[in-house]
Amino acid sequence: MATLSSASCFSYATQLPSSSSPNSVSQAPICGHNQRIALPSDPQRFHSAKISCQSNRRSSNRNAVRMQDGDAAPAITPVENENPFKKLKDNLPPTSPPEETKVPAQFDFNQNESTVTITVVGASGDLAKKKIFPALFALYYEDCLPEHFTVFGYARTKMADAELRTMISKTLTCRIDKRENCGEKMDQFLERCFYHSGQYDSLENFAELDRKMKGHEGGRVSNRLFYLSIPPNIFMEAVKCASLSASSGNGWTRVIVEKPFGRDSESSAALTRALKQYLQEDQIFRIDHYLGKELVENLSVLRFSNLIFEPLWSRQYIRNVQLIFSEDFGTEGRGGYFDNYGIIRDIMQNHLLQILALFAMETPVSLDAEDIRNEKVKVLRSMRPLKLEDVIVGQYKSHNKGGATYPGYTEDETVPKDSLTPTFAAAALFIDNARWDGVPFLMKAGKALHDKIAEIRVQFRHVPGNLYNRNFGTVLDKATNELVIRVQPDEAIYLKINNKVPGLGMRLDRSNLNLLYAARYKKEIPDAYERLLLDSIEGERRLFIRSDELDAAWSLFTPVLKELEVKKVIPEYYPYGSRGPVGAHYLAAKYNVRWGDLGSQQ
Amino acid sequence: MATLSSASCFSYATQLPSSSSPNSVSQAPICGHNQRIALPSDPQRFHSAKISCQSNRRSSNRNAVRMQDGDAAPAITPVENENPFKKLKDNLPPTSPPEETKVPAQFDFNQNESTVTITVVGASGDLAKKKIFPALFALYYEDCLPEHFTVFGYARTKMADAELRTMISKTLTCRIDKRENCGEKMDQFLERCFYHSGQYDSLENFAELDRKMKGHEGGRVSNRLFYLSIPPNIFMEAVKCASLSASSGNGWTRVIVEKPFGRDSESSAALTRALKQYLQEDQIFRIDHYLGKELVENLSVLRFSNLIFEPLWSRQYIRNVQLIFSEDFGTEGRGGYFDNYGIIRDIMQNHLLQILALFAMETPVSLDAEDIRNEKVKVLRSMRPLKLEDVIVGQYKSHNKGGATYPGYTEDETVPKDSLTPTFAAAALFIDNARWDGVPFLMKAGKALHDKIAEIRVQFRHVPGNLYNRNFGTVLDKATNELVIRVQPDEAIYLKINNKVPGLGMRLDRSNLNLLYAARYKKEIPDAYERLLLDSIEGERRLFIRSDELDAAWSLFTPVLKELEVKKVIPEYYPYGSRGPVGAHYLAAKYNVRWGDLGSQQ
Repeated sequence: MATLSSASCFSYATQLPSSSSPNSVSQAPICGHNQRIALPSDPQRFHSAKISCQSNRRSSNRNAVRMQDGDAAPAITPVENENPFKKLKDNLPPTSPPEETKVPAQFDFNQNESTVTITVVGASGDLAKKKIFPALFALYYEDCLPEHFTVFGYARTKMADAELRTMISKTLTCRIDKRENCGEKMDQFLERCFYHSGQYDSLENFAELDRKMKGHEGGRVSNRLFYLSIPPNIFMEAVKCASLSASSGNGWTRVIVEKPFGRDSESSAALTRALKQYLQEDQIFRIDHYLGKELVENLSVLRFSNLIFEPLWSRQYIRNVQLIFSEDFGTEGRGGYFDNYGIIRDIMQNHLLQILALFAMETPVSLDAEDIRNEKVKVLRSMRPLKLEDVIVGQYKSHNKGGATYPGYTEDETVPKDSLTPTFAAAALFIDNARWDGVPFLMKAGKALHDKIAEIRVQFRHVPGNLYNRNFGTVLDKATNELVIRVQPDEAIYLKINNKVPGLGMRLDRSNLNLLYAARYKKEIPDAYERLLLDSIEGERRLFIRSDELDAAWSLFTPVLKELEVKKVIPEYYPYGSRGPVGAHYLAAKYNVRWGDLGSQQ
Repeated sequence: MATLSSASCFSYATQLPSSSSPNSVSQAPICGHNQRIALPSDPQRFHSAKISCQSNRRSSNRNAVRMQDGDAAPAITPVENENPFKKLKDNLPPTSPPEETKVPAQFDFNQNESTVTITVVGASGDLAKKKIFPALFALYYEDCLPEHFTVFGYARTKMADAELRTMISKTLTCRIDKRENCGEKMDQFLERCFYHSGQYDSLENFAELDRKMKGHEGGRVSNRLFYLSIPPNIFMEAVKCASLSASSGNGWTRVIVEKPFGRDSESSAALTRALKQYLQEDQIFRIDHYLGKELVENLSVLRFSNLIFEPLWSRQYIRNVQLIFSEDFGTEGRGGYFDNYGIIRDIMQNHLLQILALFAMETPVSLDAEDIRNEKVKVLRSMRPLKLEDVIVGQYKSHNKGGATYPGYTEDETVPKDSLTPTFAAAALFIDNARWDGVPFLMKAGKALHDKIAEIRVQFRHVPGNLYNRNFGTVLDKATNELVIRVQPDEAIYLKINNKVPGLGMRLDRSNLNLLYAARYKKEIPDAYERLLLDSIEGERRLFIRSDELDAAWSLFTPVLKELEVKKVIPEYYPYGSRGPVGAHYLAAKYNVRWGDLGSQQ
């Protein structure tokens, strides 16, 4: 790997002195997009260095110790901890050319002479068009991709390179900042995009891809990333073919896989076993795009770099935690996939549970991926498997509003008429460890609700012996402090505090100590896929799910999922666009919780 | 006293639900100005009742238990804990008519039949014109004064009532809200203002005033408030004359006195002894207008009604506390009074020390005045007397800037040329109790500085075992959390937290969780004098200084004040408009503190 670059970028943004307004925001250039490695610096100093992603990306080890002002600390040689390709099973003939498999992977190659090829398998799919190609372009635009990179689209459709480029170009935008050379950059990016048509289960087709790749790699060290954006039923075949026919011979080969990771403990374990026939654990990048969201990333920073939160982060001060996800649209004619999974598998068991684990984990030994993932597994393993009485499920029904009719879930043509699949669920979970014993973690997720939001709400306990209670009555106990981390939309952190309403009387009021990202940070927040793609190229696994995490997550939800299906539990029907089933309130009330998002006080 | 009114006003302001912005502010009417009694209510409910100050002021007991929706709790009969007038010393002949002194004070009179007469002694002075009369008008305008009230101006100048009215009218403004009937209200107020010319040491002149007052009182129960806005040398005589010649015969008599309360322990104690010849402790309202400031009032609310602050409020989490006061102008030809006192007596020993005591006190038994003042005295008595080595003093010198010359302190014609009086001081104080042992409380106050600000800064300790330190270097320890309570100007509360800069890298940044009053509360914040005048009329002593507090405050500062004078300590000279003596930084450094207001990060 590369030695550490001595170029540096000031990583600690400063606020300009201003006595008149604490709102005022630094004019220091935010070089976040160009800057992967955070650098220590004296926060008292004001610094405007701007170094592009390009000049820093070579040191992909995020944990390298960097000193201020460009002095590199003694270089810690990053260790590439994966084999270039999985040693093939004896019963499977290697299809990669033998001369490539001989190239030793361990030599300290110069990364300038290495290449990265990113293959989007399922290139004509929706996610590829809407998220993956635009994210790759954004990374290119911000100089975050390696110098030598190639993008391949792979799908069954017959298509020329030019057609792929036309298709992609429709979804690329220069949204991050509107520099003048956007069109030029776009052209440059498209020139490096190619298409290969093939079956997902054809060793031969992947071998053709391999040959095309080699042409572009031009003898350099070859690193290959496969993004599998294809349905679960063809998933394993594609992994097998990519691994056997198109693994890198002298660099790394990594595969990004997407949910669903099975339907329950058994199918997930089977999937993992199957994957591991062809890939080692550290080649598998299980993506949960919620982990790439800005405020989820910030969760650990908030917890571990602010003293004020440290003493509060336990059962002693926290009354309950709420993890809330809602969409304001239904399946809209695309319920076929969803109906087989339901909201619990689609949102709770992965996105919300991942956030919960990050929220609740003990302090890790370090910020290294394995240390963080070890702590997350510990939390998941400390949790009680969810019980049926702690879950309520709902399904949206049609609703007429303002002359328009919004169709119910089972009116979606791709959904069976008698489907009992939940489109809404609320659940109460508990972590039986010393920190969280007895604190309800409430989850709520639903489609076709009144609102589109994802947020974490931390409700604190009441003030013991509240002086103002004693004087004013007893209801102040409801007005407890609350920390809200709004993941989307309009990223924000706010802390609800009680304060005095200005004026001659003594009236209390709940106000927000507020950090609205849009006000503080002018630059657009990168999409979760950008972060995750870049991480996978850099081999940073912190935000990807390890197989033991996945097992633990399924263990929590599998019993109740089975019970719901076996008992054919009828969901509570709620109108499209409503606030969801009232059952969610009764579940909350059972644990003395009140949903923070549905009160008059948000 | 009056029975509790059943009219009520919603005391717990709510925020409208808003998913898009946590900045959004309630549109509920803020009836603070009209509402003296805080009322409990269900914060989940949204309520828009608006009750005027007029309808509530009769229940002046702030601690009355009020229920929501206008139901009065079983009335707690407020006890008027002062005698209507001080029993006169035997050697002083009573000048009040004997028939009045016979009226028993204890009967539960109907307050509708009582009157209040407010006499501003020193009516032609600057403070009277700029603060006292405007504050009285603001109270009248907001219906906070009793139905039957009269205002008297008293001074030596010969003047007719009309002249007083003309003089006052120039400084009255309808600044609180711009209602249409402002001019009308102003006329109504002025009609109730009268003037009496007299000497401050004339029993006879005060007896004339007494007769005029009686005419206005018209046989009702008479309550009398004297605001002594006169220099210290004529102070005692005025108290004597007011008390002996113009005390109320059947209601209460209260006297508001202003600093200076002496120059040191001895002179202060002598003053207290002298006052108590004519007044009981509970008739004396020692005003410190800083205690009437909105954010100082809010300090106790923040501490005692927010769970999140409770665990943080001690030596375990707080590294230091800074109390900062600066003015951006000098004595400007009015240094005569100041030169005899200096900045330590003028600002530190009272304003800053009072804030410190409120900040650091233990939780009081209740919000009653005596309970709070008991706790404040305990803090002051736990403090080490200030030592000379923990004080630095400064004096501003002239400065040329942009063609203009700003005169030095000793160039003020009212100041002796060789004056060593400090116009700037910084001090390190310590509270030797279990909560605060070892935590430096740093004070800083100065004139002719670059800025005009008053604020409290609470710097928290570093994060133990900071994960981000370990990965990024060691300097994050400087970026600790900080809570800033800005008393003036632009009232605000903000909490500095570390968060992640949005973007692909992991860069940390210090942002503010911010509550800027101007953004949250549209209504103008009442002047400190309004609050304090109303409190004194209502007999609420919480924000006034008790004599034992005053003694304790002087005990802390008297030794060092004497030493400074005896040793003729030369102040460090600093240019007019500068950031003050660098000595303040060395003093801070001695205790491992960095001033929060002078860094690049505010």
